[in-house]
Amino acid sequence: MVIDFIADYYKNIEKNPVQSQVKPGYLMTQLPDTAPYCQESLEDVLKDVTESIIPGLTHWQSPNFFAYFQANASTAGFVGEMLCTGLNVVGFNWIASPAATELESIVMDWVGKMLKLPSTFLFSGNGGGVLHGSTCEAIVCTLVAARDETLRMIGAENITKLVVYASDQTHSTLLKGVKLVGIPTSNFRCLSTSFSSEFSLSPQALEDAIENDIKAGFVPLFLCATVGTTACGAVDPVMDLGKIARKYNLWFHIDAALRSDAEFLRNNASESNDVVDYKDWQIALSRRFRALKLWIVIRRHGLANLMCHIRSDVNLAKRFESLVAKDSRFEVVVRRRFSLVCFRLKHNDECQGLELNRKLLAAVNESGRAFMTHAVVGGLFIIRCAIGSTLTEERHVDDLWKLIQEKAADLVKETGAIGG
Amino acid sequence: MVIDFIADYYKNIEKNPVQSQVKPGYLMTQLPDTAPYCQESLEDVLKDVTESIIPGLTHWQSPNFFAYFQANASTAGFVGEMLCTGLNVVGFNWIASPAATELESIVMDWVGKMLKLPSTFLFSGNGGGVLHGSTCEAIVCTLVAARDETLRMIGAENITKLVVYASDQTHSTLLKGVKLVGIPTSNFRCLSTSFSSEFSLSPQALEDAIENDIKAGFVPLFLCATVGTTACGAVDPVMDLGKIARKYNLWFHIDAALRSDAEFLRNNASESNDVVDYKDWQIALSRRFRALKLWIVIRRHGLANLMCHIRSDVNLAKRFESLVAKDSRFEVVVRRRFSLVCFRLKHNDECQGLELNRKLLAAVNESGRAFMTHAVVGGLFIIRCAIGSTLTEERHVDDLWKLIQEKAADLVKETGAIGG
Repeated sequence: MVIDFIADYYKNIEKNPVQSQVKPGYLMTQLPDTAPYCQESLEDVLKDVTESIIPGLTHWQSPNFFAYFQANASTAGFVGEMLCTGLNVVGFNWIASPAATELESIVMDWVGKMLKLPSTFLFSGNGGGVLHGSTCEAIVCTLVAARDETLRMIGAENITKLVVYASDQTHSTLLKGVKLVGIPTSNFRCLSTSFSSEFSLSPQALEDAIENDIKAGFVPLFLCATVGTTACGAVDPVMDLGKIARKYNLWFHIDAALRSDAEFLRNNASESNDVVDYKDWQIALSRRFRALKLWIVIRRHGLANLMCHIRSDVNLAKRFESLVAKDSRFEVVVRRRFSLVCFRLKHNDECQGLELNRKLLAAVNESGRAFMTHAVVGGLFIIRCAIGSTLTEERHVDDLWKLIQEKAADLVKETGAIGG
Repeated sequence: MVIDFIADYYKNIEKNPVQSQVKPGYLMTQLPDTAPYCQESLEDVLKDVTESIIPGLTHWQSPNFFAYFQANASTAGFVGEMLCTGLNVVGFNWIASPAATELESIVMDWVGKMLKLPSTFLFSGNGGGVLHGSTCEAIVCTLVAARDETLRMIGAENITKLVVYASDQTHSTLLKGVKLVGIPTSNFRCLSTSFSSEFSLSPQALEDAIENDIKAGFVPLFLCATVGTTACGAVDPVMDLGKIARKYNLWFHIDAALRSDAEFLRNNASESNDVVDYKDWQIALSRRFRALKLWIVIRRHGLANLMCHIRSDVNLAKRFESLVAKDSRFEVVVRRRFSLVCFRLKHNDECQGLELNRKLLAAVNESGRAFMTHAVVGGLFIIRCAIGSTLTEERHVDDLWKLIQEKAADLVKETGAIGG
């Protein structure tokens, strides 16, 4: 019954407005405010999902979802989740389910090789990887490892001297991580980027900031570079930044471990040091069998199809970019590198231009026919068209462009305000 | 095909050894060390799951799993995961999927009422709750909130003066959390408990420690009390500890928020303050639609059945406890309160007794017929029989006891070493 329900959801997904149109608080008027004392039927639950939940969803799997970055589901991933949930083992240490740990190590090496990482990043090269529950967890673990290595040398009371460097395009998760690990946010150097360098982090600006901090008695700790920023897909010059990180002994994207040992977790396997206990590689103690899902996704698709999927997204983005470029009312604001196109309606007056593009984006999203989000880079308001939904085909990209043109024409009529 | 596979797994679950019998490194001899270039069939994947993964699992869903604490799956939970995975929305802020946020708020209030929390803990009483991915995430968020409120008053450089209090029975996750948030682990006061107080935290010991710390220039920050410790199910005297927390203005199990705002996440709904953006209530930015699973589990079972399940576990534990009590070779070491029974073979010599119980536990687990774990409390090695697997019936508890008696008899023959 549930499989059919989900199949129907996908069959009809384009009929729903992409961005949910509900108003805040809608759901509490539709659902009871206490749990049922007796059990309810699955039919009743699915009826409520259809009538109350689906209308409140923003449809991330819709082919007309061009917002944020996509978070794609696939049949292979679904099968992986089913097995993971069905077996429901907790692999926090090796003994609690050896296959969960060992499959994760194997699949992490697969991924490392897929990304062509140096062999020292692989288990087979005395490195190793872990599937974190979220990026923020991974960043927190990295920051803690860097922080504690340095504090061991300079003393715990000097935590307020540690400095973290990144560009103003860096994901907000880094700042959240800095706060979590107890480094004062005033020690977060959010280095300015500019239109002229395509919003990438300038090695010179970085080195200047480091020198200033050293003179002022701070301790440079951590550098975060980004390949493909959230706002506009900017790429930091990793090689040049790496040289500076090496020169000043900054932590530069290197994973590290933490440990926790309670008696109830002790076992011979752990003490033999022959095994990895993943609880020491992450924030949480318990963990799902996530490697099973990743293993199945990779095997069911194969590298060839995974690469093809990425290339197809990039080709669709190129197509969208060329459509924007052909219309003189619009401009592509930042050079497209991957499958994110950043564009806007041109306007002679920056202030009115911002308002105009904000209205255009709202009109597109409120139509329910597509969903995009925005960003502000270098003071410019841009509309982000992120392409990558599994179900997105050429026709969806073409329809999106027609929709944008249609709403832009309405705005011109209404305000007479498009310059160029 | 996958549903049938999982159904078969449960049908045959008792045929597998409960604790996996594989040796470290077994899996890498069975699976390729690089990802496949072309896609593989689901049949091939499931064949490998059967032949290579299942033998490496410790079967957490087995009715003969009495180790750690259980992590139960259910059909209702499975349906919830299927829907959650199928819809695959990311509800980090309200706009990204209103139903994900609103259902979580509603279900959190359900749970709060189920636990009979004061109304100030509920959204409907201007409180509110969030489903974290793990306990450690929740603890880290709480510690950070407490830490930053105090550091705002005393200055960030005084982080090394903050002190966290808990008993030596407290879950190791707290110490991990303390490390993560940058409080020196030497400031973690791990207060001794004893057999005579049933391993609960002594209010007097706490107050003495606080007074000592204040005299030494430290700043008491955070008190963690536990109801049902991992090792032996001890219960701290929450009311009395709460009074001390209030007297010294300690943070005492109170949830709190963090915030992060990036331009690409801005939207009118968030700025209206009419909505909850759950990204600010947790470590990660992104999040699964976990409330959907919890909502379905509660509705499909109903409060009546959920309570019945817990009571049935406790009754099975009482049954096991009475079996242990009837055999003069054994003793129940700590009073049973919930569904955890802590017992051991008696012995006149403490050192030999430890070795004997260690051997007994190993013999039980190596039989593959059941899986229990151990703990050390007050210097005593105890065997923990945690009862709570959904599939566990009276006969599994009775079989476990027979197995334990059988292995104990073997040990007596072998060593002649059981005293009493």
